Amino acid sequence: MFKDALKEIVDHTEGGMAGLIMDMSGIPLETYAKDTAFDISTVGAELSIVLGQVQRAGENLEAGPMRELQVGNEKMVTLIRMLDATYFLALTLKPEGNLGRGRYMMRVASPKILKEL
Amino acid sequence: MFKDALKEIVDHTEGGMAGLIMDMSGIPLETYAKDTAFDISTVGAELSIVLGQVQRAGENLEAGPMRELQVGNEKMVTLIRMLDATYFLALTLKPEGNLGRGRYMMRVASPKILKEL
Repeated sequence: MFKDALKEIVDHTEGGMAGLIMDMSGIPLETYAKDTAFDISTVGAELSIVLGQVQRAGENLEAGPMRELQVGNEKMVTLIRMLDATYFLALTLKPEGNLGRGRYMMRVASPKILKEL
Repeated sequence: MFKDALKEIVDHTEGGMAGLIMDMSGIPLETYAKDTAFDISTVGAELSIVLGQVQRAGENLEAGPMRELQVGNEKMVTLIRMLDATYFLALTLKPEGNLGRGRYMMRVASPKILKEL
């Protein structure tokens, strides 16, 4: 079910490369990559460290729980959406990909994924 | 000039709260807040720490230079755009604010700000 949900998000987002569901300690629950050479688990693991920092920054700022993170690098853009306090959903796109579509697909998929966690 | 550029971005983005230009060590070059009680410098300083982490993650992933970061918390959303290797531009919005408009305003303002740095 998780694989199908990730495939749906990645394949229906223009420029979508890969997606994953991961816990905050960097352990992937499920991954999907269009190009199987793309190592989405390593991307997720690197970003899980960043997520911890962003959460602490949010706490210091009394900004409420972190909901989303978007990281844009020259060669790829990664969208992250927290599913609950433990798990997050991530989508990596090409820089010219459709971010708005990606965010929409993740928003729609989140409650369905959350029900199965 | 920097103050005017920040005011332009914040005041012309629906839900815009505050903006700043800051260096990567967390020292603000200029700030502007609609509500002067809002401490945008502290937001920037917290996020400059995160930015360093995101840059290192990007290097580990060979994803090329970081261009943008977007952090969405329950009570606010912060958009960050790198101006060069040293300085970044940040805009904080209400969660229901117009992110697309904010990104656009920052993109248009960046070359003008960069020319004066």
